[in-house]
Amino acid sequence: MATLVLVRHGESEWNVKGLFTGWVDAPLSPKGEDEARRGGELLVEAGIRPDVVHTSLLSRAIRTANLALDAADLAWLPVTRSWRLNERHYGALQGKNKAQTREEFGEEQFMLWRRSYDVPPPPLPDDDEYSQAADPRYAVLPSELMPRTECLKDVVHRMLPYWYDSIVPDLVAGRTVLVVAHGNSLRALVKHLDGISDEKIAGLNIPTGIPLRYELDADFRPLVPGGEYLDPAAAKAAIEAVANQGR
Amino acid sequence: MATLVLVRHGESEWNVKGLFTGWVDAPLSPKGEDEARRGGELLVEAGIRPDVVHTSLLSRAIRTANLALDAADLAWLPVTRSWRLNERHYGALQGKNKAQTREEFGEEQFMLWRRSYDVPPPPLPDDDEYSQAADPRYAVLPSELMPRTECLKDVVHRMLPYWYDSIVPDLVAGRTVLVVAHGNSLRALVKHLDGISDEKIAGLNIPTGIPLRYELDADFRPLVPGGEYLDPAAAKAAIEAVANQGR
Repeated sequence: MATLVLVRHGESEWNVKGLFTGWVDAPLSPKGEDEARRGGELLVEAGIRPDVVHTSLLSRAIRTANLALDAADLAWLPVTRSWRLNERHYGALQGKNKAQTREEFGEEQFMLWRRSYDVPPPPLPDDDEYSQAADPRYAVLPSELMPRTECLKDVVHRMLPYWYDSIVPDLVAGRTVLVVAHGNSLRALVKHLDGISDEKIAGLNIPTGIPLRYELDADFRPLVPGGEYLDPAAAKAAIEAVANQGR
Repeated sequence: MATLVLVRHGESEWNVKGLFTGWVDAPLSPKGEDEARRGGELLVEAGIRPDVVHTSLLSRAIRTANLALDAADLAWLPVTRSWRLNERHYGALQGKNKAQTREEFGEEQFMLWRRSYDVPPPPLPDDDEYSQAADPRYAVLPSELMPRTECLKDVVHRMLPYWYDSIVPDLVAGRTVLVVAHGNSLRALVKHLDGISDEKIAGLNIPTGIPLRYELDADFRPLVPGGEYLDPAAAKAAIEAVANQGR
């Protein structure tokens, strides 16, 4: 049996402003920093001691991991980072206001971009101010691998190699694994773990900063479907709030 | 030609209190946090962009690295940690006041413990309140590898395998390497790089938070002996202050 703990980064300043963020490197808000520390405290209270940490390449996930680990006196844990755990690339929507986008394109198109499994927004040109094409952290990605937009299906596709090649080997070695990432890269992972259909994944929201624990069987499938939030009441309230974003 | 940058962690709370710290996991002081951020700014101002980071397993080095990287917008860099970069284990002196120790044992014995190359303080029993024998971060060290006290010679001996096996391969791959560690683990590395004698290393102090850059030749030896501090005036002033510790 292996233990996997997922944490979605705390609230970012762009969450507060109601902007589509994607690969834009928005920092945590003060509330997001508190959520991160609380996440670390919840790990301690639950008696969960991760052995290794995996994060995306985005500052809001890295800082969430750092603050949570500081709070748990675990700053010294080995950590590995990958673009494959990054948030969904939101294409031409990056930097746009969610409420304005809903008004401009209508409820149907808005929800299609936000929640459809396989319809990506229009691509973001490399010379756009919100493009990451020239960001040195992605210099290791050949042009054909660098996303210009993504739907959730694309995220599943680029995330899974990291799950299989970097996280599963840690679990095989008996390590308790902490993954600190994003709403959509974690939805992609949960979709895989729980075998959620392309249709039903639209209704799944993951709250910020509340560790989600999975105990996995020998085939790396959850013993309890959906896992267990370390603060179930807070998770329930937060999930409802996420569902109302952009309204 | 390869670039190596060394940073000693910022001032810790135990530095302020004048206590021997060693492997005790003392946090940074507020001034130490400022020094760490300033270290990151100095990297940016000098146009140095590390590709990888190596830290010890002690919070004060890890937090210094995190703050410096945040300040340089480089939180996403890959990082590797090792006990081999830890501060010298100060044995039975850990937790003791420097000035009191000087008074109790006399100037000669005090300086022998602090600055001799091969005389370690008495060992620290595993059941001492300042022992790290039960710290989970060192669970991977078999008992015979876990230090109970160290002289600088011991630090050189346990640090060098990390230099050869983990840092040099990064340099060979053309990466600019940032090492964030401690007064004595960095003195050990500088002794090796600059070929400083066992006698002369006693006079070498490394200031906190000021990046020290080495350009290395094909045999990983400095092109300029002693390297170059990114803020030479501040380094000179700080080196003089370190030499007066415990007075």
